[in-house]
Amino acid sequence: MSATDFPQWMRAIQARTEDALRHALPPLKVAPDRLHEAMRYAVLEGGKRVRPLLVHAAGAVAHAKPAVLDRAACAVELIHAYSLVHDDMPCMDNDTLRRGKPTVHVEYDEATALLVGDALQSLAFAQLAERGLLAEPARQLDVLRQLALAAGSRGMAGGQAIDLQSVGQTLTREALEVMHIHKTGALIRASVRLGALCGTPLGSDIETRLDTYAKRVGLLFQVVDDILDTEADTATLGKTAGKDADNDKPTYVTLLGLDEARRLSAELEAEALEAIAPLDASADLLRALAAYIVRRRF
Amino acid sequence: MSATDFPQWMRAIQARTEDALRHALPPLKVAPDRLHEAMRYAVLEGGKRVRPLLVHAAGAVAHAKPAVLDRAACAVELIHAYSLVHDDMPCMDNDTLRRGKPTVHVEYDEATALLVGDALQSLAFAQLAERGLLAEPARQLDVLRQLALAAGSRGMAGGQAIDLQSVGQTLTREALEVMHIHKTGALIRASVRLGALCGTPLGSDIETRLDTYAKRVGLLFQVVDDILDTEADTATLGKTAGKDADNDKPTYVTLLGLDEARRLSAELEAEALEAIAPLDASADLLRALAAYIVRRRF
Repeated sequence: MSATDFPQWMRAIQARTEDALRHALPPLKVAPDRLHEAMRYAVLEGGKRVRPLLVHAAGAVAHAKPAVLDRAACAVELIHAYSLVHDDMPCMDNDTLRRGKPTVHVEYDEATALLVGDALQSLAFAQLAERGLLAEPARQLDVLRQLALAAGSRGMAGGQAIDLQSVGQTLTREALEVMHIHKTGALIRASVRLGALCGTPLGSDIETRLDTYAKRVGLLFQVVDDILDTEADTATLGKTAGKDADNDKPTYVTLLGLDEARRLSAELEAEALEAIAPLDASADLLRALAAYIVRRRF
Repeated sequence: MSATDFPQWMRAIQARTEDALRHALPPLKVAPDRLHEAMRYAVLEGGKRVRPLLVHAAGAVAHAKPAVLDRAACAVELIHAYSLVHDDMPCMDNDTLRRGKPTVHVEYDEATALLVGDALQSLAFAQLAERGLLAEPARQLDVLRQLALAAGSRGMAGGQAIDLQSVGQTLTREALEVMHIHKTGALIRASVRLGALCGTPLGSDIETRLDTYAKRVGLLFQVVDDILDTEADTATLGKTAGKDADNDKPTYVTLLGLDEARRLSAELEAEALEAIAPLDASADLLRALAAYIVRRRF
């Protein structure tokens, strides 16, 4: 993959993910229409779709069909979108801006935001449970189970719980890492795993390499997020900048300082690339994605 | 099934459901421990387990293995439990008492209640996605999909949204029915369907009969709930009595009056029984359950 092809590929995946989400979400005119409108508001026209990009890039390694990857990408993104809606609620981060728009509980109301998140989670699993998505239904059950475990109390939801308990605390770097491994890492890891599961079996060596890549990229994503949260302004981020530091939440920057956080991000990128170094050109999209995640500006 | 056997069967199913839930929930000592403690608080030692009873009773018609039904019953009950935790939150019904105990957001806090509900939903789907649960994995996908659809925006979560919009409104009986068909009906219907799907294929005539039974029982359950909410006191109910009327929420009693609501419950029971009248003795548990639902005191 050449450096000029990657942005084009990225835009293509973002566009087809948008289409897939639009198709997966309930139509506006179906009752209850206010809930369905709010679900579409929460999901569509927003975000960089990093997780869908990872699903498709990992799927390329396993030569998975793009239409099948669309479904997996869609399910992962629905889980991610639900988590943002719930995280923004007053009882959690109490944020009013997301992806440059008022958050769901601000635009609608708290009860609707609660139900939007709940219904998006159900929808993600309904998407993955349709018969015939994969030729081998037992493998399709694995896809579903991986996503359910990544979303649950030992994955993303558990990470949120650890995050809550850490407000105002002095965390060690290890404790911060444990939080992020759950909070954002689990779903990023699941994205790579789901993409690979959608294709032909890869063998345990390559699967382990992809998983190491995913673990490093998951942390990398968070370190870069913390750096951007320090550097960027609200308009560029599309969400409230400096929020974590203001909320007395530990970040890689407050813990390590900006220089050391930058050094860590370079290290994590190198480790991610090293893990998949023996793979052929089918892994070039994963390589380009790691570079994109480090160099993104918002 | 004799009249004396039914209470014994019911206690046995309740006990094995409790065991299955205890086993499915994350252990207390696993991090994040506060979240896991709250999840167990929300689910264990509570409720009549009506949905698990329906799963097992419908499963008996399809000669399903009890161990498989335990898993389905567990998943349905986890979805039900999550919905109660979220419904009780201040932005929804703002209730402080559930099953005779403080609600989760009172005992813990709002953010924890939000995460408990989210994580219980993921857990329900993880439970059903384990390879080998059913001999036919494609059928297992159907089980999963039915539950996901029943929980989602066109099922239970949608019913909650309709409920929110109906506060302070004068609803017609038809509109009230639409709300309950979603809010409680969808999951009760899914319970019967899941039980049947766990066994040997029944053929479309019996499936349709079971579905009609489930639809009637779903409404019946709600009508009886509204009658009990009017008649009983808080101590007997284990939740705040008279709450719906106080909240200016339409109920079958406020809409039809107590006598007409009682007449309606008898009519729904008769229709439920009529739907499964041609079935053999394997449907006796479903028959006894309908009678139990009408005659329950809390």
